[in-house]
Amino acid sequence: MTYEQLYLQIIARKSYLCVGLDTDLRKIPPHLLTEEDPVFAFNRAIIDATADFCVSYKPNIAFYEAQGPQGWESLRKTLEYIPKTHFTIADAKRGDIGNTSGLYARTFFDVAAAGLNFDAVTVAPYMGHDSVEPFLAYKNKWVILLALTSNPGGDDFQRLTIDGKPLYEHVLTISQNWADADRLMYVVGATQADALAHIRKIVPNHFLLVPGVGAQGGSLEEVSRHGMNDQCGLLVNASRSILYASNGPDFAVKAREEAQSVQREMEGFLKELMSA
Amino acid sequence: MTYEQLYLQIIARKSYLCVGLDTDLRKIPPHLLTEEDPVFAFNRAIIDATADFCVSYKPNIAFYEAQGPQGWESLRKTLEYIPKTHFTIADAKRGDIGNTSGLYARTFFDVAAAGLNFDAVTVAPYMGHDSVEPFLAYKNKWVILLALTSNPGGDDFQRLTIDGKPLYEHVLTISQNWADADRLMYVVGATQADALAHIRKIVPNHFLLVPGVGAQGGSLEEVSRHGMNDQCGLLVNASRSILYASNGPDFAVKAREEAQSVQREMEGFLKELMSA
Repeated sequence: MTYEQLYLQIIARKSYLCVGLDTDLRKIPPHLLTEEDPVFAFNRAIIDATADFCVSYKPNIAFYEAQGPQGWESLRKTLEYIPKTHFTIADAKRGDIGNTSGLYARTFFDVAAAGLNFDAVTVAPYMGHDSVEPFLAYKNKWVILLALTSNPGGDDFQRLTIDGKPLYEHVLTISQNWADADRLMYVVGATQADALAHIRKIVPNHFLLVPGVGAQGGSLEEVSRHGMNDQCGLLVNASRSILYASNGPDFAVKAREEAQSVQREMEGFLKELMSA
Repeated sequence: MTYEQLYLQIIARKSYLCVGLDTDLRKIPPHLLTEEDPVFAFNRAIIDATADFCVSYKPNIAFYEAQGPQGWESLRKTLEYIPKTHFTIADAKRGDIGNTSGLYARTFFDVAAAGLNFDAVTVAPYMGHDSVEPFLAYKNKWVILLALTSNPGGDDFQRLTIDGKPLYEHVLTISQNWADADRLMYVVGATQADALAHIRKIVPNHFLLVPGVGAQGGSLEEVSRHGMNDQCGLLVNASRSILYASNGPDFAVKAREEAQSVQREMEGFLKELMSA
């Protein structure tokens, strides 16, 4: 999917919501456990319930890996089921030397390899440019690079100061030599709202993928006010708050209500943007 | 496996060789492609040929992932086939927020999850302590943290200077608060021999996993002289130079010869250590 196509989806659906498919067998409604593939049955219901209100889906690969080969099959079916209108992100946080990153790129981008054809993969920056470049060899595919994450350990290294600037800022500036805003996004945690305005100045045109709204405590309003650019420039992820809005037979109805509620709030922020 | 058990294996086999199972369908001898599971058939032959001369095996997870669910099945069979005397490393370079890292830990450590029961996983440090801790919740399991890698992009961030010290040094010192030398190792590329002696001073007791000898151009002699401690403290990985020593029906014989040649060299360095 191109930058332009993604932007048009945001306009059409008045939403920049990404639904994180962190599907956990221990948390899905018990009545689904008798299904042949409970993870896919859950995801299908969540996708049906939320596709009107979001522009992206982000399976967290750890949740599928932990199920062994069956998990990868559930992932493949899920990805196939997601409407082609929606931007798909493999939240895998991969990163290795060039020839190995090339294989990770094949895994997630080349349908002939593992049956997967994501639009984007999250990548950790620690190993530098040749760990990222193999992903960029695929046309219209994206790298979403970790910059400033929402977890407590994010501060251990990401905010260490180098030449007066935190490490995450060096990640932003150095990585801009690797790809433009039409191929590269950054992960910035919603709990880092203080830094979002600063990051937006450094990377004015890039999309930011922002997890941490909802269960992790980030504020959608703050993220939107500090993080938007004139092309929206945000994908805000919510996972647990939507997926597990209810644990009963009404889980899909409740997920839909929760997604719609987020979408309505986003519609308000997009209107402000358009009228600005 | 414990620190003590690993050390005893090194002494018994007079080797600190780790064989990297970077098994690539495009590189294995063509006559194996008619096997039901060519990747496992190749790995089984390599393990049979090399187990006398190495103490560890390190499947590079990307190579298995890129085969889809079948790849994970090949990985499971391979791991099951490796003798229990050998230290097994999932070279996965994972790292995510705490609850997600918990699932990666289950994937590689809990046989009930994905059928895998590795001794160790490689982890990227960028997301900090809570991305590492879930792996340490498993008894006698290890985290091998990326410190200074052997690829060209390793210098993009790892050598940036913070308070007079490179980032990788902060990774070494900060992470020592997370676990002791009996649970934590570090990845240091063999092409960084200049830094090895320095790193050895910062982490005198920790094992270092050193890739990059052989195909990537690192010298076993330099690595051994600069990196050893009085418990050996090294696992030196070779992948392509052993796996693809021959592309013909004699691939296992040639792999054995290559592994034995490395082991003999290692035996010499271990003798020097013992007599010092």
